[in-house]
Amino acid sequence: MRHVTDMKVSPPLSAEELGGMAGRTVTIHGIVQRIRKLGWGAFVILRRHDGLVQCVMGREGNEEILESLDVEQSVRVTGTVEEARVKDLSINPRTVEIRIDSLEVLAVPAEQSPVDMTKKVLDLHIDTNLDLRPLTLRHPVERARIRVADTLAATFRAALAGMGFTEIHTPKICSAGAEGGANIFRVKYFDREAFLAQSPQFYKQMGVGIFERVFEVGPVFRAEPHQTSRHVNEYTSLDFEMGFIESFEDVMAVEMAVLKRMMRMVRERNGYQLEMLGAKVPEVPSGIPAVTLEEAHKVVLDVTGEDFTGEPDLSPEEEKVLCGHSFREWGSEFLFVTHFPTEKRPFYTMDDPDRPGTTLSFDLLLRGLEVTTGGQRIHDYGMQVEKMKAFGLEPRSFEGYLQAHKYGLPPHGGLAIGLERLTARILDVENIRLTTMFPRDVKRLTP
Amino acid sequence: MRHVTDMKVSPPLSAEELGGMAGRTVTIHGIVQRIRKLGWGAFVILRRHDGLVQCVMGREGNEEILESLDVEQSVRVTGTVEEARVKDLSINPRTVEIRIDSLEVLAVPAEQSPVDMTKKVLDLHIDTNLDLRPLTLRHPVERARIRVADTLAATFRAALAGMGFTEIHTPKICSAGAEGGANIFRVKYFDREAFLAQSPQFYKQMGVGIFERVFEVGPVFRAEPHQTSRHVNEYTSLDFEMGFIESFEDVMAVEMAVLKRMMRMVRERNGYQLEMLGAKVPEVPSGIPAVTLEEAHKVVLDVTGEDFTGEPDLSPEEEKVLCGHSFREWGSEFLFVTHFPTEKRPFYTMDDPDRPGTTLSFDLLLRGLEVTTGGQRIHDYGMQVEKMKAFGLEPRSFEGYLQAHKYGLPPHGGLAIGLERLTARILDVENIRLTTMFPRDVKRLTP
Repeated sequence: MRHVTDMKVSPPLSAEELGGMAGRTVTIHGIVQRIRKLGWGAFVILRRHDGLVQCVMGREGNEEILESLDVEQSVRVTGTVEEARVKDLSINPRTVEIRIDSLEVLAVPAEQSPVDMTKKVLDLHIDTNLDLRPLTLRHPVERARIRVADTLAATFRAALAGMGFTEIHTPKICSAGAEGGANIFRVKYFDREAFLAQSPQFYKQMGVGIFERVFEVGPVFRAEPHQTSRHVNEYTSLDFEMGFIESFEDVMAVEMAVLKRMMRMVRERNGYQLEMLGAKVPEVPSGIPAVTLEEAHKVVLDVTGEDFTGEPDLSPEEEKVLCGHSFREWGSEFLFVTHFPTEKRPFYTMDDPDRPGTTLSFDLLLRGLEVTTGGQRIHDYGMQVEKMKAFGLEPRSFEGYLQAHKYGLPPHGGLAIGLERLTARILDVENIRLTTMFPRDVKRLTP
Repeated sequence: MRHVTDMKVSPPLSAEELGGMAGRTVTIHGIVQRIRKLGWGAFVILRRHDGLVQCVMGREGNEEILESLDVEQSVRVTGTVEEARVKDLSINPRTVEIRIDSLEVLAVPAEQSPVDMTKKVLDLHIDTNLDLRPLTLRHPVERARIRVADTLAATFRAALAGMGFTEIHTPKICSAGAEGGANIFRVKYFDREAFLAQSPQFYKQMGVGIFERVFEVGPVFRAEPHQTSRHVNEYTSLDFEMGFIESFEDVMAVEMAVLKRMMRMVRERNGYQLEMLGAKVPEVPSGIPAVTLEEAHKVVLDVTGEDFTGEPDLSPEEEKVLCGHSFREWGSEFLFVTHFPTEKRPFYTMDDPDRPGTTLSFDLLLRGLEVTTGGQRIHDYGMQVEKMKAFGLEPRSFEGYLQAHKYGLPPHGGLAIGLERLTARILDVENIRLTTMFPRDVKRLTP
């Protein structure tokens, strides 16, 4: 018997810590991202957990190592931190560089990577980028997007935890779909058929009866056959559901508070990434404009002359026009659209008693794209059973879900934010596939 | 156009805040958990997001409301916070109660709940408990377990984020399984067949090449046909993977640091839950004992006389014996067992060059149950391809995964903790189904 202790646990220096260590000697490890060999020696750019660091290595005494040193080798270096002014935006920290005293190679690749990491931006076809994802994600621009998504998800959780929400983990293998329709994946579950969760909707609502306020960050699955830049078939959904609302605008207000904190944290934590990506985080204004779907169609008619009056939803083109209008006229890149018609929203959506045929529902648009869907839900058992029947559904198929309503639920509502879409709009990435590590679409199951 | 603002957003008072408000008037909402009507009025116990609060309501002027007030009604009450000494461990805060001035009913259930919430512990058969999960989870004891699991997952993430780990979200629909074998669920993915992720293993390792240190908290799926108290078919896996390790004990050391923080946070945040559940959080000692599998068998032989020498794994009985021994002799409820044989560990596990036939792998046992599996992974491309072949696998089927090795990976290792198992052992819950909200097993797909 021996003992394991945690005395040796020492996390790697952060880029920020390293930036403040000029004059000190450090030992760090990293992977060679780029190397530029010159007469006097070489610039060695190391990839670390939170940035690239520039190292300088003299030729004298290092001839042999320099000869064989190459990209994607894992190394440990010891050297002196020196002040520097590095202009390359992919470097972090940019205020120092490391003058290498000694370098040890810990692992070498079997082959030369087919991806050229010296480019500022990978100019690969998106299919090539995604085929080589374990490699292309090693590029600083690709990494940066994932780090921003990380901040968004972590801040979503922290903001809600601070408002009395409980985090839940709900099953992804289910006996029925929340959103209905054909867009559902089927699983062979032992001797029967099951489905992959299209959303945690049912479970969030059950959660309201249990914890009053719940949230979940997790995968959802949509078997949508569309191959567009706005769709993937598996994505990360930021979900919350809250009890005791007085109006569906309470949900929008909480979203606004959460978004404020998310945008602030991205600015605070991801300055390096934002600068490298040339991205500008949208401001959450003191009031987010909200229009009904009817008003939204009218705005589009006024701006473009195109008449969508009576259409039950917004087209992608309308979303772009509306966001442009909102920014120009109302000073907000965020725009709520409310009161979608009953037939376009799922059966659990509460109808608006004051506007028959419409629901207490909303979408949030950002920079031309819908990033959130939410609304007030039905909490009354009788009302829910009626609406299921009106939708041609069989209440008996939803027995577990309806337990919550039958035995009591407070008035409640909630929403879902698509993490990939939100990240894409914040960073102005055209195709949401590039905001996630390993996207899944109709044609893509690997890597 | 109107504006939505977040000025009205006000999270519910926490139990702790409420406990410090004696003498003040408050308006709170909640769901009636229990009600005891007496001659002078009633005790009304409200279920809130983080505890139950005791309210007292006089009969005078409230006859009509008292007549109809019943469990599972959603209410808003205004009243005076008064000091009190409540002995009932399910109440939180226990230092105050609310004398109700006015009560408004916001929603009423359609039917009386079949679950009796007045019992200290639900004495239902586990199948009944799980069939009625949206209701049984409203019981304070059931809620408490989920809140502890919430703390564990949140602290796992916070601890690792503080050590330079990046959170990742990896696909759950995959083209191949990480763990191999028959225990994999099949999905119909458009016109082909896909699989549900048995673990994020492949993606974590690719993540090491990208971010050096990564973690994920997410669902994993195992089509294990066992119907035991230690298995569910979908569970929440706490995963991490770290680069630049010098030994697989570096992984064990980081786990130890993370566990320390997790145990401390449960004690700090979940005092109410622990007291009600009568649970004692295990101490992480200054050194966690570690024995090889061979030594472990020897301990079992010494203690019980049963000879498992040469067995390639530990039986559940051995795990119990070993934990008892570790606690008695070495003062630790946690015990690492290392060096499982090559054939019992997945193909990505690094063999121990010093002990042929064994691997640089470990399990962590806690109170008689394996709660973690981890180890050092193969980072060298040639070595990995060789081991795949030795395992009868076709390297071409793992092309995406092997990109990471081929083009360079640092030495690395990682682990996975089963959240349900860890929660169960901390809280001494016999069946892990009761530590999750909506478990899935061979027979259960609902609710």
